[in-house]
Amino acid sequence: MELVSLPSEMRRIAEDLRRRDGTIAFVPTMGFLHDGHLALMREGRQRASVLVVSIFVNPSQFGPNEDFERYPRALQKDLEKIERIPADYVFAPDTRAMLPADTETWVEVTGVTRGLCGAHRPGHFRGVTTIVAKLFNLVQPHIAIFGEKDFQQLRAIQKMVHDLNFAVEIIPHPIVREPDGLAMSSRNAYLSPKQRNEALALSQSLFAARELSAAGTRDPDAIVQAARRVLDRSADIKLEYLEAVDWETLAKPSAHRSMLLAVAARVGDTRLIDNIALHNPA
Amino acid sequence: MELVSLPSEMRRIAEDLRRRDGTIAFVPTMGFLHDGHLALMREGRQRASVLVVSIFVNPSQFGPNEDFERYPRALQKDLEKIERIPADYVFAPDTRAMLPADTETWVEVTGVTRGLCGAHRPGHFRGVTTIVAKLFNLVQPHIAIFGEKDFQQLRAIQKMVHDLNFAVEIIPHPIVREPDGLAMSSRNAYLSPKQRNEALALSQSLFAARELSAAGTRDPDAIVQAARRVLDRSADIKLEYLEAVDWETLAKPSAHRSMLLAVAARVGDTRLIDNIALHNPA
Repeated sequence: MELVSLPSEMRRIAEDLRRRDGTIAFVPTMGFLHDGHLALMREGRQRASVLVVSIFVNPSQFGPNEDFERYPRALQKDLEKIERIPADYVFAPDTRAMLPADTETWVEVTGVTRGLCGAHRPGHFRGVTTIVAKLFNLVQPHIAIFGEKDFQQLRAIQKMVHDLNFAVEIIPHPIVREPDGLAMSSRNAYLSPKQRNEALALSQSLFAARELSAAGTRDPDAIVQAARRVLDRSADIKLEYLEAVDWETLAKPSAHRSMLLAVAARVGDTRLIDNIALHNPA
Repeated sequence: MELVSLPSEMRRIAEDLRRRDGTIAFVPTMGFLHDGHLALMREGRQRASVLVVSIFVNPSQFGPNEDFERYPRALQKDLEKIERIPADYVFAPDTRAMLPADTETWVEVTGVTRGLCGAHRPGHFRGVTTIVAKLFNLVQPHIAIFGEKDFQQLRAIQKMVHDLNFAVEIIPHPIVREPDGLAMSSRNAYLSPKQRNEALALSQSLFAARELSAAGTRDPDAIVQAARRVLDRSADIKLEYLEAVDWETLAKPSAHRSMLLAVAARVGDTRLIDNIALHNPA
């Protein structure tokens, strides 16, 4: 396994791999890896001859009052985890190598980024899509694996790839959860044991909604209400949004189409997100 | 020479060429080809094993009151001209194949696109950089040749390629002029013989400035004044801008750095642009 830190070196390796007819799978991460990340890597490992993992905490997707500075980092531990998959290359560039101070080009997806997290984190998805476009150009993957926990991010990347004709196939990977249901997230490390327990209300609210949906209730408002009743039991959860949207477009939902129920909330200072697909059984 | 109209087919050809170790040169155009375009193609022909030329009148780089609808088109004549270079592939996609109605991803370069044409054509460069990003992803060129007549466009593309880590080398090509100095442009076809004669004031104003600069005058204001005196002789020219800017950054010029003197003006309804580099002899 090779650690690559220079963008120019990553490009050279990718071009070499492409010439040798290798298929490249790519898993972009911000590091501080958990089993969710590792599941994406195992999927990539299976689907291609070469696996590239990137570790880059992208400042341009954090707002000015967000947690870029204190975002957890653990490169050595991350490398040990990736070694056990293993990946072939870990691309871990410096902040300034990936985002020089004179950067003035941005890739922006409108539409699917307007609601949900996009409404609460201005500039967030522009930062994500710009960095992912850069990573795609450097790593030149045939496939790239994205987790469904960041579902709106997944849809933004899919839209960018389609609209800009990137030659990359995007593979969504289901949310990986702790045994008690909490969606895995690097930010779970911020939680005290008490907060960790409170945070369970997020997934539990989604599971309650899924039960209702599975029992035949397809009215979006009724589904949201069911989820909200669970969240309301926890006084320490500050809800940012709880919304049912169309599973494909993230726009207004319709009872006869698959829906996504998505939630964002703060537990203490920690912002957590989760979601669940409510597929139309018809 | 093969005519390709489907984006998916262009992608397949490019991936195949890449695997066969061919180097791909790319000349993107809006068609209605003149000797300036053909010079770019000859340059690409020399520099690579495969030459791809695209013809696409990009609606997203025209403003709502601009000349997209009446922009001159002549595909058959264009193909005959390209055949004589020859190119290997001509990529001429449908408008809707390249820009589906549901497009919602844009590549935007700030900074170098703010002044000059950017100040007068809002959204123009966003349309250019978005389409060029798409074309780069479809054609996967090693090098791409851009004419210096659209100098601000050249700088925007160079910035985009640098910032987004596109694996493409951008080759600038000098302006190709008619024997009397008029910069070649597809829009020259709009001009009546009288207007064609009036339009000479653009290049003549730049040549006057170049003489002053070559004689040692490096003050940007004095240089602009010299050019303006030539333009002022023509009552039928409506000046849009005449500016000296830094040749690299297109920002405020400095007497001890190379400058670009750029002009945009209407002759009748026809908008023409031209520019000249005033290199610092030091």
